[in-house]
Amino acid sequence: MNYCSNCASPLISCIPPGDDRLRFVCEACHTIHYENPKMVVGCIPEYEGRILFCRRAIEPSYGKWTIPAGFLENGETVAQGAQRETFEEACAKVKDLTPYALYNLSLINQVYLLFRAHLVDLDFSPGEETLEVRLLKKDEIPWEDLAFNVIRETLRKYLKDSETGVFPFYIDDISPR
Amino acid sequence: MNYCSNCASPLISCIPPGDDRLRFVCEACHTIHYENPKMVVGCIPEYEGRILFCRRAIEPSYGKWTIPAGFLENGETVAQGAQRETFEEACAKVKDLTPYALYNLSLINQVYLLFRAHLVDLDFSPGEETLEVRLLKKDEIPWEDLAFNVIRETLRKYLKDSETGVFPFYIDDISPR
Repeated sequence: MNYCSNCASPLISCIPPGDDRLRFVCEACHTIHYENPKMVVGCIPEYEGRILFCRRAIEPSYGKWTIPAGFLENGETVAQGAQRETFEEACAKVKDLTPYALYNLSLINQVYLLFRAHLVDLDFSPGEETLEVRLLKKDEIPWEDLAFNVIRETLRKYLKDSETGVFPFYIDDISPR
Repeated sequence: MNYCSNCASPLISCIPPGDDRLRFVCEACHTIHYENPKMVVGCIPEYEGRILFCRRAIEPSYGKWTIPAGFLENGETVAQGAQRETFEEACAKVKDLTPYALYNLSLINQVYLLFRAHLVDLDFSPGEETLEVRLLKKDEIPWEDLAFNVIRETLRKYLKDSETGVFPFYIDDISPR
């Protein structure tokens, strides 16, 4: 962040009065440019005991497997965001979303919120950012080729909870890779 | 958002290739300036059946009562954010934070995450953005003078759940006022 998005003047980094941390501040128009964590929303789309996986066609983790997830957009709810990402990445519809796990990735200023969800039907195909979509049995999960730590940990919890049928809401910290 | 924070050129609003919604885009350096919802984190600080309330010294809702909450900062976890806000607004320490309710305020691009928490001791006082801090019994809650819908709804749920001692995790949509 170099210039003020309001008036185009160069920004300085300073602690504003009454604040306790460095911000980008415009000395010309006095706008403070706050930066805050972003939410990533996604889901575990389940269909008769199987889970829908996407193989990524973009970096980071090109070619690796994941479940549908992406940045929450302005104007949508967290569940709507997870449904939109599922449709964008796997051209698939999900319903009955239940919050399952929240992860702090504070090193990269992200908060993940992942839902459990039911895949509506078997109508799915790769979206623009996806190489391949597959409905996998729980013993077919490609543990060695998962894209992100946070997805591996969520699936690990999910498989364990599937044994008992009791799915609590988790909140945990995790490193990005 | 008028100018590019990277190179200070004027921004245009357009749908970038492969995208499906309007973004602010720099035609000079090709930076896309995404805007995403912000998280607000806070807690219900409880001490022997009473709840710690703050009376706001800032707009919006100057003079109204609320529980400690504010924008999540980069580099912190959601629980750390709720603890920091409690210390900033009420100079109070909380522990044993349990996630309690997530609210979509999609009209204003905010996601609230509120915890239940235990107030560590009776050492509290107004922070810079607070007029007054009080530990109130459940029948003393100033329902008519609460600052925000989302706080009223959270406290309503909390009081109901207090009767049974069972506190599920809620996720809901709510309007700002």
